[in-house]
Amino acid sequence: MKDGPTPQIVTAGLLVIGDEILSGRTKDRNIGYIAEYLTTIGIDLREVRVVADDEDAIVEALNALRTRYTYVFTTGGIGPTHDDITADSVAKALGIAIDYDPRAVALLKERYAAMGTELNEARMRMTRVPKGAELVPNSVSAAPGFWIDNVIVMAGVPTIMQAMLDAAAPKLKTGIKMLSETVRADCREGDVGTELGEVAKAHPDVMIGSYPFVDDVRGPNTNIVVRGRDPARIAAAKAAVEDMLGKVRARLAV
Amino acid sequence: MKDGPTPQIVTAGLLVIGDEILSGRTKDRNIGYIAEYLTTIGIDLREVRVVADDEDAIVEALNALRTRYTYVFTTGGIGPTHDDITADSVAKALGIAIDYDPRAVALLKERYAAMGTELNEARMRMTRVPKGAELVPNSVSAAPGFWIDNVIVMAGVPTIMQAMLDAAAPKLKTGIKMLSETVRADCREGDVGTELGEVAKAHPDVMIGSYPFVDDVRGPNTNIVVRGRDPARIAAAKAAVEDMLGKVRARLAV
Repeated sequence: MKDGPTPQIVTAGLLVIGDEILSGRTKDRNIGYIAEYLTTIGIDLREVRVVADDEDAIVEALNALRTRYTYVFTTGGIGPTHDDITADSVAKALGIAIDYDPRAVALLKERYAAMGTELNEARMRMTRVPKGAELVPNSVSAAPGFWIDNVIVMAGVPTIMQAMLDAAAPKLKTGIKMLSETVRADCREGDVGTELGEVAKAHPDVMIGSYPFVDDVRGPNTNIVVRGRDPARIAAAKAAVEDMLGKVRARLAV
Repeated sequence: MKDGPTPQIVTAGLLVIGDEILSGRTKDRNIGYIAEYLTTIGIDLREVRVVADDEDAIVEALNALRTRYTYVFTTGGIGPTHDDITADSVAKALGIAIDYDPRAVALLKERYAAMGTELNEARMRMTRVPKGAELVPNSVSAAPGFWIDNVIVMAGVPTIMQAMLDAAAPKLKTGIKMLSETVRADCREGDVGTELGEVAKAHPDVMIGSYPFVDDVRGPNTNIVVRGRDPARIAAAKAAVEDMLGKVRARLAV
């Protein structure tokens, strides 16, 4: 890889839409899930924004994110009630017309016929899709998400969002995966901060993070995480971290 | 209140700083906590952003948020290691000098003397505070947060962040509290969406949200939440929601 082309890096932004997240009524469970999912498949999540069910806020945040990152994922606001304004806001941000989508209507008709549920005006709201979008299947409850340009619009209910992400993932362009190695320091962050900074400076081609945690046996402890795309460089940095930790622990006599 | 001055509205933005949140390695537990806390004391959380441990990203997001909202809270990046760059980034965003703060140094000296811990170069990093800032006490582990202009900088570790928020809260300006009432619909969102939209249109002085959930007995169910600052207006809208639900349930025979 060293002499080849620059490895492809694919990035993403995430826009979480919903008054209930900002009021604290609902605790978001999608950010962490999506972050881990994208990392695993080789997409770097670079930024998350949470905004209210407010057209101006959605349009502004979406336009900021979609011009910066390879993809933008949105969660929330695609249900059947008046406060579900994501689809129309996305269409507005992109300057694209939106209407009831015959493919989405067909999906709901089929589902509701099987369940004896009425496809009323409220449920028809869930078939509003910007022109030219692809549908993102919803294996849980039929009402689809959609994908238009680099924007992937998903439900806010975690089980449905997860099904939609599984459906969209095989079509996403992915990059060289970000790999990570964790080393448990067996000392406190403050014991090791200066030396770790020197290791980080000597290994600028990887990212080194330090995360305190409380260990049941030892009390305050630290995980040092080395992240990068090249396994050899990660291994070299990890070895340097381990070597440094050995010296620090000897000095501290822990 | 109807004839009095416009009720004071106090707003906030939240900036969550940390590579580990964006990689999914650490699942954020601060957003929901802070959202609920601020709602309870009468501050409206309007926007959240999550960015990496990257100076440019922090500066840009902080400058966007601090000019829009009464307050900006930040979490993360104030520990003793090289990847803790929040304090310096905040100083840069505000165009303010930063240095080792004698008050913070005294706090750490006292704490570490009691614990037999060395106040080394790494730990000194936690005493870097922009000039003119007030310290935000940390009853858990001493190293303080700080408050400069309208920016309140807190730790990322939830227990420490919570202690800092408790310490800062009594000094925060607060507004008329956002109140909410929840009505369980005992029907599905799609059954009630059209009628609920009409109620919302007739009560523009409150916000009405609809949140599907799964009820152990009934299966798909819906919570309707009426939010606002005036108890009388909330009560009127809640009564209209209940009246509407009675009619819908009679029609559906549920």
